[in-house]
Amino acid sequence: MMDLDRLFYPRNIAFVGASENILKWGSYLFTNIIDGGYSGNLYPVSKSRETIYGRRAYPTLGEIEGEIDLVIVTTPASTVMDILAQCSSKGVRNMILITSGFSETGAEGVELEKRVSGFARENGIRIVGPNTMGIVNTQNSLFANGTHVRPGRGGISIIAQSGNVGNQMMEWAEQENIGLSKFVGSGNECVLKCEDYLEYFAEDEDTSVIVMYIEGVDDGRRFFEVAKKAAKKKPVIALKAGRTGTGGRAAASHTGALAGSYRIFEAAARQSGIIVAGSPMELLALASAFDSLPLPGGNRVGVVTLGGGWGVVTADECEERGLTLPELPEKIRDHLDSMLPAFWSRGNPVDLVGQPDVNVFRESIEIMMSSDAYDAIVFLGIVGSMKFIMRVYEAARRLGGNLDADVKSVKKRLDEVQNQILDRTIELMEKYDKPVYPVALILTDEDDIIHRKEDSRYSAIIYKSPEEAVLCLEKQYQYSRFLSSV
Amino acid sequence: MMDLDRLFYPRNIAFVGASENILKWGSYLFTNIIDGGYSGNLYPVSKSRETIYGRRAYPTLGEIEGEIDLVIVTTPASTVMDILAQCSSKGVRNMILITSGFSETGAEGVELEKRVSGFARENGIRIVGPNTMGIVNTQNSLFANGTHVRPGRGGISIIAQSGNVGNQMMEWAEQENIGLSKFVGSGNECVLKCEDYLEYFAEDEDTSVIVMYIEGVDDGRRFFEVAKKAAKKKPVIALKAGRTGTGGRAAASHTGALAGSYRIFEAAARQSGIIVAGSPMELLALASAFDSLPLPGGNRVGVVTLGGGWGVVTADECEERGLTLPELPEKIRDHLDSMLPAFWSRGNPVDLVGQPDVNVFRESIEIMMSSDAYDAIVFLGIVGSMKFIMRVYEAARRLGGNLDADVKSVKKRLDEVQNQILDRTIELMEKYDKPVYPVALILTDEDDIIHRKEDSRYSAIIYKSPEEAVLCLEKQYQYSRFLSSV
Repeated sequence: MMDLDRLFYPRNIAFVGASENILKWGSYLFTNIIDGGYSGNLYPVSKSRETIYGRRAYPTLGEIEGEIDLVIVTTPASTVMDILAQCSSKGVRNMILITSGFSETGAEGVELEKRVSGFARENGIRIVGPNTMGIVNTQNSLFANGTHVRPGRGGISIIAQSGNVGNQMMEWAEQENIGLSKFVGSGNECVLKCEDYLEYFAEDEDTSVIVMYIEGVDDGRRFFEVAKKAAKKKPVIALKAGRTGTGGRAAASHTGALAGSYRIFEAAARQSGIIVAGSPMELLALASAFDSLPLPGGNRVGVVTLGGGWGVVTADECEERGLTLPELPEKIRDHLDSMLPAFWSRGNPVDLVGQPDVNVFRESIEIMMSSDAYDAIVFLGIVGSMKFIMRVYEAARRLGGNLDADVKSVKKRLDEVQNQILDRTIELMEKYDKPVYPVALILTDEDDIIHRKEDSRYSAIIYKSPEEAVLCLEKQYQYSRFLSSV
Repeated sequence: MMDLDRLFYPRNIAFVGASENILKWGSYLFTNIIDGGYSGNLYPVSKSRETIYGRRAYPTLGEIEGEIDLVIVTTPASTVMDILAQCSSKGVRNMILITSGFSETGAEGVELEKRVSGFARENGIRIVGPNTMGIVNTQNSLFANGTHVRPGRGGISIIAQSGNVGNQMMEWAEQENIGLSKFVGSGNECVLKCEDYLEYFAEDEDTSVIVMYIEGVDDGRRFFEVAKKAAKKKPVIALKAGRTGTGGRAAASHTGALAGSYRIFEAAARQSGIIVAGSPMELLALASAFDSLPLPGGNRVGVVTLGGGWGVVTADECEERGLTLPELPEKIRDHLDSMLPAFWSRGNPVDLVGQPDVNVFRESIEIMMSSDAYDAIVFLGIVGSMKFIMRVYEAARRLGGNLDADVKSVKKRLDEVQNQILDRTIELMEKYDKPVYPVALILTDEDDIIHRKEDSRYSAIIYKSPEEAVLCLEKQYQYSRFLSSV
């Protein structure tokens, strides 16, 4: 296995091509590394400048005193062989080659890339790229990456054969407060292949879930061997792009990847325990579920809903995804009978018929969680319903209603109630080791999609739609079966 | 055809069950109507109170002077026959029956509902519901609905056999600034059926797109006859819930709907020109596309992207949905050759390989739009890229970079550039009458998803993912084919 520790945790970095021209990649990345809070030494290398952003620049790598763990390169393709020679003299082992103009551009580029990889291999230099957006490691605040995104720390690591797809995922993660561990845009993979990163992330203690955006792999056999080993340790979720003839041709012109047959990929993925996603957004939603929720032990789903329609939509999604909704055990039915109006559904989905009583919410979820009849619970419309009550309250106040508390204290109380429900959800997930998928009635931009609780293994994810919740449940069940089969 | 003008545009409303208890439906709706800005007369009817929210209450309908266009009822099921008798004496023709406890609750409820509908039909009273969340009409600010949502005005009208699914769609519409015309939760449909609303909305000048959430229809033949007539006039988009055995059982317990075979529904929908959606979120996304964009005349898609990976993902989505990506005409290739670095893709998708030049964006979109080789354009990563440049700029400033303008003026300039691109997109849609689907690089919560331009027939919708854009394109193409076949 490649030891990529000094790549992802470099003690010092030399940056060849660092620039103050803000429209250059040498500026995107250089400012990003500093602004991102990297705490090691960072040496700009420039022939023309004495300082860059106030840091002393060195004309060549050789003139930097002390060891260099990582060299980042943004200068044109024609300069790369010379820089590699400097790396070799200096004993540098890791390079991020942002520069494009290699195998993705035609015969000449292919030739140059061969010389680069040949020299690198002979001299023990590991190269990320070329034609890459770079890497991110939130664990040491290393943002050696083309776009200024700032996802928080977490357990998800991303390997992307497309920098912009990977960066869009990081952007979503930042927006939705989903924590990431590491990111690498693998580019043309002239030395380091996506399976090398996969192998490294499988062993990485800071990575709990691995996400891959793949256009094509050079050595399918090795890729799936590594993947299967990784999948036994932690979930590996992959999106395969270039599935169709049109997509495959686009992939060939993008990273030079040979797309191969999608059917063969799917079959091999299934055998290796890889979870296959349908789109970049699904990739992230699944990663977040795997990182936050326990796995279901089976496919039996209990549904609790504030309104019937959501229950129907959820039931359809479940059955279409191979999950079942077993009927309510008599004990549960009797218990709910004592709490709910006579016209409640008396079945699974449990329809709370719009009762705004918090204790009913809590008890229904609790009783379903504790039952051996269910492996997972989806509850709908409960989170967010506090906000709905709040709006009625505010309207009533505006109309001069005679209400016994002020808006602020009601809001505080309702927020507390919602947080209690989510805290309780996390406690129940820990107690019964089964997942819960809350789907919100109202989710505004200010709401956190992930609810965390101190000292808890699990977090609650609040889903915006039943279909997203059920998709995650299906794939987590699939992975749970894989783990018990190996 | 039922004349529902006085239901959706009542000059005055009597509200039986209006209440100041904010946990009652009689409060949810009553406060919502006032707070929503309804400008007609609103008379609370209450035996126990003299005023409700400062408005004089009447003990019975008979005591209200003058005509009543609409009666809203939230009192228990047992009171409804008496209220109907009062309506009949008073000459009331329209009722919204929020009350539940009818056919959805078992044999006794079925019996009561039959008496209600029988009396209503004999006396010419049209009933929405029972067991409904109510109606909304943004055109006259009528929010006679259970949740306090405030979507803006627009052309989309929603018919929902589930109040909570319908209300969640309105909530999303409000959040994403998608304009709605009317909403009705059809409930148990004891008198007015979903096809009655469909027939009315088909003729309604304020409705340009009709959206339906359906669990089951009583009279399939009439439903599809009405639907086909409607679909010839304007797009009708439907989600059928209760597709599976599990979902069908849940639907039966929800609104008593008999789900029927999904295959038969799908086939009939295709023949009638109904666009079928897969989820509530899809319903709204499609409605918004149909309301804002011209229809594509064919299935030939041109893709312009700032980065290769998105192009691959989009190409896959297109082919999987029956769309094609014809190669670039020589003229366009030569033109782009003169603008782009040597290593650009030279094919469709056009990969702008990360060039941050606004003129290149604009010209690439323009040249693709103007070409007869394409019926629709998807462009990726261009909208939002200004924000990315802004972040680099801000970082450079923080690091003491020697920049010639302040952050504020750069931001303003970049915002202007983005607005110009979107304005130009709208102009080109008008000029060539073909749709454009921009997918954003970065879309934050503050961004508007819909970009409008004064005096323009069309608006630009900014998509968060390629798959959503391509889904809309596929369904718009499908509808375009339907229109040319009838």
